[in-house]
Amino acid sequence: MSYQPIDYLPYDFANRRHIGPSPEEMAEMLEVLGVPSLDALIDQTVPRDIRQAEKLDFGKPMSERELLHHMRVTGAKNKVLTSLIGQGYHGTVTPPAIQRNILENPAWYTAYTPYQPEISQGRLEALLNFQTMVCDLTGLEIANASLLDEATACAEAMTMAQRVAKSKAGAFFVDENCHPQNIAVVRTRAEPLGIEVIVGSPDALEADTVFGALFQYPGTHGHVRDFTDQIAALHEAGAIGIVSADPMALCLLKEPGAMGADIAVGSTQRFGVPMGFGGPHAAYMACREAYKRAMPGRIVGISIDSHGNRAYRLALQTREQHIRREKATSNVCTAQALLAVMAGFYAVFHGPKGLRAIAQRIHRKTVRLAKGLEAAGFKVEPAVYFDTITVDVGLLQRGVLQAAVREGVNLRKVGKSRVGITMDEAVRPEIIEAVWRAFGLVRKDDDLTPEYRLPEALLRQSEYLQHDVFHMNRAETEMMRYMRRLADRDLALDRAMIPLGSCTMKLNSAAEMMPVSWREFSLIHPYAPEDQWKGYKTLIDDLNAKLCTITGYDAISMQPNSGAQGEYAGLLTIRDWQVARGQGQRDVCLIPVNAHGTNPASAHMVGWEVVAVKCDANGSIDLEDFRAKAERHSDRLAACMITYPSTHGVFEETVQEVCKITHDHGGQVYIDGANMNAMVGLSRPGDLGGDVSHLNLHKTFCIPHGGGGPGMGPIGVKEHLIPHLPGHPLNAKGAGPVSAAPFGSPSLLPISWAYILMMGGGGLTQATRVAILNANYIARRLEGAFDVLYRGSQGRVAHECILDVRPFEKSAGVTVEDIAKRLIDCGFHAPTMSWPVAGTLMVEPTESETKAELDRFCDAMLAIREEIRAIEAGEMDREVNPLKLAPHTMEDLVKDWDRPYSREQGCFPPGAFRVDKYWPPVNRVDNVYGDRNLVCVCPPMSDYAEAAE
Amino acid sequence: MSYQPIDYLPYDFANRRHIGPSPEEMAEMLEVLGVPSLDALIDQTVPRDIRQAEKLDFGKPMSERELLHHMRVTGAKNKVLTSLIGQGYHGTVTPPAIQRNILENPAWYTAYTPYQPEISQGRLEALLNFQTMVCDLTGLEIANASLLDEATACAEAMTMAQRVAKSKAGAFFVDENCHPQNIAVVRTRAEPLGIEVIVGSPDALEADTVFGALFQYPGTHGHVRDFTDQIAALHEAGAIGIVSADPMALCLLKEPGAMGADIAVGSTQRFGVPMGFGGPHAAYMACREAYKRAMPGRIVGISIDSHGNRAYRLALQTREQHIRREKATSNVCTAQALLAVMAGFYAVFHGPKGLRAIAQRIHRKTVRLAKGLEAAGFKVEPAVYFDTITVDVGLLQRGVLQAAVREGVNLRKVGKSRVGITMDEAVRPEIIEAVWRAFGLVRKDDDLTPEYRLPEALLRQSEYLQHDVFHMNRAETEMMRYMRRLADRDLALDRAMIPLGSCTMKLNSAAEMMPVSWREFSLIHPYAPEDQWKGYKTLIDDLNAKLCTITGYDAISMQPNSGAQGEYAGLLTIRDWQVARGQGQRDVCLIPVNAHGTNPASAHMVGWEVVAVKCDANGSIDLEDFRAKAERHSDRLAACMITYPSTHGVFEETVQEVCKITHDHGGQVYIDGANMNAMVGLSRPGDLGGDVSHLNLHKTFCIPHGGGGPGMGPIGVKEHLIPHLPGHPLNAKGAGPVSAAPFGSPSLLPISWAYILMMGGGGLTQATRVAILNANYIARRLEGAFDVLYRGSQGRVAHECILDVRPFEKSAGVTVEDIAKRLIDCGFHAPTMSWPVAGTLMVEPTESETKAELDRFCDAMLAIREEIRAIEAGEMDREVNPLKLAPHTMEDLVKDWDRPYSREQGCFPPGAFRVDKYWPPVNRVDNVYGDRNLVCVCPPMSDYAEAAE
Repeated sequence: MSYQPIDYLPYDFANRRHIGPSPEEMAEMLEVLGVPSLDALIDQTVPRDIRQAEKLDFGKPMSERELLHHMRVTGAKNKVLTSLIGQGYHGTVTPPAIQRNILENPAWYTAYTPYQPEISQGRLEALLNFQTMVCDLTGLEIANASLLDEATACAEAMTMAQRVAKSKAGAFFVDENCHPQNIAVVRTRAEPLGIEVIVGSPDALEADTVFGALFQYPGTHGHVRDFTDQIAALHEAGAIGIVSADPMALCLLKEPGAMGADIAVGSTQRFGVPMGFGGPHAAYMACREAYKRAMPGRIVGISIDSHGNRAYRLALQTREQHIRREKATSNVCTAQALLAVMAGFYAVFHGPKGLRAIAQRIHRKTVRLAKGLEAAGFKVEPAVYFDTITVDVGLLQRGVLQAAVREGVNLRKVGKSRVGITMDEAVRPEIIEAVWRAFGLVRKDDDLTPEYRLPEALLRQSEYLQHDVFHMNRAETEMMRYMRRLADRDLALDRAMIPLGSCTMKLNSAAEMMPVSWREFSLIHPYAPEDQWKGYKTLIDDLNAKLCTITGYDAISMQPNSGAQGEYAGLLTIRDWQVARGQGQRDVCLIPVNAHGTNPASAHMVGWEVVAVKCDANGSIDLEDFRAKAERHSDRLAACMITYPSTHGVFEETVQEVCKITHDHGGQVYIDGANMNAMVGLSRPGDLGGDVSHLNLHKTFCIPHGGGGPGMGPIGVKEHLIPHLPGHPLNAKGAGPVSAAPFGSPSLLPISWAYILMMGGGGLTQATRVAILNANYIARRLEGAFDVLYRGSQGRVAHECILDVRPFEKSAGVTVEDIAKRLIDCGFHAPTMSWPVAGTLMVEPTESETKAELDRFCDAMLAIREEIRAIEAGEMDREVNPLKLAPHTMEDLVKDWDRPYSREQGCFPPGAFRVDKYWPPVNRVDNVYGDRNLVCVCPPMSDYAEAAE
Repeated sequence: MSYQPIDYLPYDFANRRHIGPSPEEMAEMLEVLGVPSLDALIDQTVPRDIRQAEKLDFGKPMSERELLHHMRVTGAKNKVLTSLIGQGYHGTVTPPAIQRNILENPAWYTAYTPYQPEISQGRLEALLNFQTMVCDLTGLEIANASLLDEATACAEAMTMAQRVAKSKAGAFFVDENCHPQNIAVVRTRAEPLGIEVIVGSPDALEADTVFGALFQYPGTHGHVRDFTDQIAALHEAGAIGIVSADPMALCLLKEPGAMGADIAVGSTQRFGVPMGFGGPHAAYMACREAYKRAMPGRIVGISIDSHGNRAYRLALQTREQHIRREKATSNVCTAQALLAVMAGFYAVFHGPKGLRAIAQRIHRKTVRLAKGLEAAGFKVEPAVYFDTITVDVGLLQRGVLQAAVREGVNLRKVGKSRVGITMDEAVRPEIIEAVWRAFGLVRKDDDLTPEYRLPEALLRQSEYLQHDVFHMNRAETEMMRYMRRLADRDLALDRAMIPLGSCTMKLNSAAEMMPVSWREFSLIHPYAPEDQWKGYKTLIDDLNAKLCTITGYDAISMQPNSGAQGEYAGLLTIRDWQVARGQGQRDVCLIPVNAHGTNPASAHMVGWEVVAVKCDANGSIDLEDFRAKAERHSDRLAACMITYPSTHGVFEETVQEVCKITHDHGGQVYIDGANMNAMVGLSRPGDLGGDVSHLNLHKTFCIPHGGGGPGMGPIGVKEHLIPHLPGHPLNAKGAGPVSAAPFGSPSLLPISWAYILMMGGGGLTQATRVAILNANYIARRLEGAFDVLYRGSQGRVAHECILDVRPFEKSAGVTVEDIAKRLIDCGFHAPTMSWPVAGTLMVEPTESETKAELDRFCDAMLAIREEIRAIEAGEMDREVNPLKLAPHTMEDLVKDWDRPYSREQGCFPPGAFRVDKYWPPVNRVDNVYGDRNLVCVCPPMSDYAEAAE
């Protein structure tokens, strides 16, 4: 035998890493579908006239080794200086155990939003810890489980204030000491809603002219002042007082609640989450109990399960945007769950004494720094402070800033003559000495006499973090096991498919994730000088170009840091363009009834009226209704928002017509990118007639869901809209900024870039094709057992399919929820429930799942159908059956078993692993009980003791 | 209230990270013990005259932040070049999913050796994959689950050959083409055993003069030749043929089995394990079925559990050194389990086609490189090769080597005029071009015509890796889930205490682990020029100095890469010293009967006779017997080997007398460092009279066990022994080298260094004190229920205690194994069983465990005692009871339950978590069945199908 070269690419060839079915499996699946080839299936599924003209081609895809090398080279172009710029972003020390066991652990980062509480008890507990920490530090009663960033949180607080204020004044006051990006994002939000923003000194506040006021604490230049009087005046006038507060400062200083604040917001970035050039980090929001139903975002609450045991769940879900649709008051859907979990654990690791000690050391470093400067004759402001000082250096400003950079330190340029310096947990004595040298001083940081310049009157009087979880034994062994226990309670992508329609839960590969925690990407301040982030620039420029090629748009803004925020930013862009061309009166947005709930919410946020468009029997847009409504509102038509392929999982053949009608009537077309995973490489929204789309980088482009955030929702636009894209938060042009950081959450971008570089154009296209194959395979295997709602003209579904389970309610008393919970017994997260059609399940397998996993799911579904049939046939009781009693727990197994089905049947339905069985920690969770008895902070330990009795 | 500074160090203060009990818990524990303070307890426990004079003081301990900064600074002193030196160490690409999910995952790295198979099924399966891979690639029937390094494996193969050969010849032949370090380590091993080593060309082999021969394949300079004729000649003479083979080459070339080889050894480093400046990596050994009982190391085999289900376990354990003691033929105990798991997964990720493709690409790169050189007139040798060539450059040697370094590449200096170059998986085209430039050639590596210079006659004819596991779907999603499933089947330190006496299963903290995977530490070749590893030098020098301070010795050798190898190295050092001073006749080693089984095995390996010394009723050395035997063998006394505190868990007060007697009779004292965790900061072996000790860095100094390796066993010696320490493997002085790499497994050293730097002297001492506290707390809590064998004169135990469970065999028919298995139901790894006293349990909690975890363990033990009492009282059957039927699995719960105790009682005994319950995947494993029906490779899938029926 002579040498036989083989034509085989290694495992990390794109098509094997990300694409679940092996070539052999694909052949079997195509045979089941009765199509000769994948090409043929795609031809049957995706209408020819919406197909893109040219194949995606990004050159040779990279191997993992090449990718990591490329990332190292790119990262090396960033210069990692010590940034003492402050302004809401700080150096911090991530406890290595948190980095390893949370941030870098797929059990945490691949999890979905905890809508199915039975399989989410671990992260719900972690988020409850976060909420408890926020409530305690702010001194308010209710906190949510995080918001996108501090600036967004400020804007959300403003609109929330407008909703709950008794005052009907039309203006909103903003403290001039707020971080500039907070002011800018608030302005952006206010403008379309007709809210007048008054920026000024708190001393100049006229309470009766506003419905609310926002104060920064400490102020952006370090001032620490008490807002009690201002808030009292606001209350007098029926207005709302909001404090944006640094949680680290709150460890030493009087809490907003004690000032009478109604709402507090802020960023928990410095609780162990690296700056990451701007994000992602978890912002927080807390409020008085009275306003809880007006609060945006997700709230974790405590309820009970069907056996009366304590269980965590998301509370007050009826407030959520996807349910309130056009009545929604915010489009915040994605939280920053993973980052909130990290910040919560940071507090658990340190406890109140530890946090207090950290805050004290930060303050003492600031004092030492100031004293050194004062000793040399510099004038340091303010007189009392926490961690930030400014120094007036007159004409030397530029020189000092440059000298600092040469010393490896970024300081803040303040006005034309001042320099700002903010200390943090990570500053070492050498850094303080380097700052002094930048001011021309040579001295040692060796004065260890503790000295304080905190305002006496503002010292915190109350205790915080008294709950046991913040006093647990902090030996790392114990903390590691706590993190592991919580992780094990949850079901995430590292154990099973999460077939969530419209959520694209695909692989987040290890190679893609690695650079995220490299210091070259994680330690950059969002406002660092441009020549320090050339690596990021390379990355962002190239990613922009590739996303333009993929979508058919001409430019991308990376600023929105969630899909819903992308929608909002896109509509703002359209609005700005309409205004600029003198069509500011256009304020009607056509939205089909099957749209994502965030679509109407986003339109509402830019001050538009939503006009709903009907769908036909097949779930497609009713073209006649669309045409009629466009005509009726022709003068006022601002835009339409459509999703492609439709939320019904079908490639509609009328999409180009819809776009044409809209354009003919002067409107712009927003194509929601939620379903881009069915399009990449096959069809481009920009070619179909779209003017704007957002891309869910956290879905289609592999950024992990993190248990409900981070997200990243950049928008692509056509050329004419480029001048109207969101502007820089510190220097806005066009539409104002929508995020605090210029590029949203850029430390996530290496993930999407890596995905594209390793897949190449061919790999990306193949992923789309296989996503469609996988969905059609499921649809076919379940045929006869479940009706698939909506198909394309040739009987195919796109990348997801809707299973109609509504008939079973009547025939067997089985609801969609029963099926979802029964799937937990089979070891699956449920598909999307009751959306876009109430009472149905929408299944999206993604390309990442193997045929074996798809079959496991189908086996489970078919077995469930058999159980339903047994009820229908009267062989099984309508109330006491495995569906109604699902999910089954280990406790059920141990207890006496008096059910009409066996333990085996209850706990090991088809699909369930045996040895590797996933056991939910609780039985079915009672949602109503939880909302009636709202508890959103860690319960006292005495409760646990009672429960145990 | 004015500002209140608090005196509280953050969570990462040493005493909180590593030390389990909180200050409050410690106070409670001391109260239970009835001592006023920890000082008082230590005074009662550690005899005053063995206490060290000065407190350990290494200055201020570092925080995690400071440590990681320090490590970055140190790492930056290493220069990461591309090393094409070869010689057994190669660039490789670790699949990121393996790095993240195995190497950086505490579920894998904190696990113990799988002696308890029921809680180790995951890593046993992973190791079985490794063995199957080794068998397939080498073409031999039996493989073990890894050895320490290739050179050690060569030496082990030599002694194994001597045991099994029919030939009684006294010499051993070594191919001159072996890697120099392999030859050096073989020589070291041979000399004390009186084996003559003949190094020469295979053509010069005289088969009837030797009992075995070792060949390198490919040879160290790239030659590839067939050893079939030589091996046939060896067989003719009753001798053994051994091939040390590169497993990557075996993907293309004829396998050793097909040449008739009896034994194959080699390194699996290039299967995804970074070079790490020399280690750790997994060596392999495979042999013919006939020799399986003579093979050193651990072998994973397949057996059945008590329900007849397939279960993995360690096979043929009666071969192991700790059981064979002085009859042992090797002291290899520690394998390189974690690295073997990684290498096994590398094969699973790539499969046979992937590996073949990688091997081909390595070869093609070599050909491209060679062609470029040949085109410029350089003479390239050999004519056919796999991945290594040499070029004769005459007087230019130095210039080429230096030019290469300037190009960022290390080449190998061969002789005085040649340069060696070895290609690997990670070499990019730019590197090939850089090598050409070092030779003065400017050309592009763009000739993509595949060309081959493999020897036609040696092309591999057979298939390999045909088992399904190597053909599983290699989508990363699937691989990630497979790794998670295996991890979840095992119980490691990330979920529960592992109270193994004499094994010190303590925290391996995340901060300590992080630098291990930094490229500055992981990508250095062990024979790289000295100026490229200044960071390592800084680390090793400082660690040496600190370990000297801790132990009272004058120098440390980092070379031994396991505790047992440390013993061997220490005895070699003593032997070399005795020979050098003209006392080469001294060949008696006194060893107490309670010594670690490796002690006699090590003594045997240096050619010494072991004379056992009795112990008294209290488990201490019988001083009279010791004295008598020292006198009797006075002329021949080479050394004694003792353990301190004793293996019975007691600080013996006679230790200094024992040392004195030994010295008086001309012997040297070897103090086994296994129990150093009871001494650090309190007592120094060097002060007690020890001349040599090894330190288990993988126990006392926080290197994780990795499921049975890596280990690291440096030795400390007194000044007079320094010249006799193990020499450099390429340039030995003193005793020969014991490992392939100069510093053993140096990429682990950052862990121990980090531990010491973050603990400081005070923290290290406190750890020791708390280890003693924890052990005494357990002893006290179990008092009355279990007899504690052996205590010090004041009734205290050291850092571990022996629980006597022998009486229960008679009273209730309950064995130590029954208790161990019942502890699994409680969620614990069993304590050490039947060592050092048969039928007992030795418990070592370490300082890392909290009081809560100790209490959970004690509750479990007390409940077990109650179960025994119920049997004793006749309330429970002697055969059908929770102890005999332990461990209980989930399958037991599902099945009909016809036992005289409840499901609750069976599955949730005190100690067991409820929601977070650990379920063993199999019932009790049948050891006898497995040894009778030995299967040590993955069974064919058809077997699984049968089993399922």
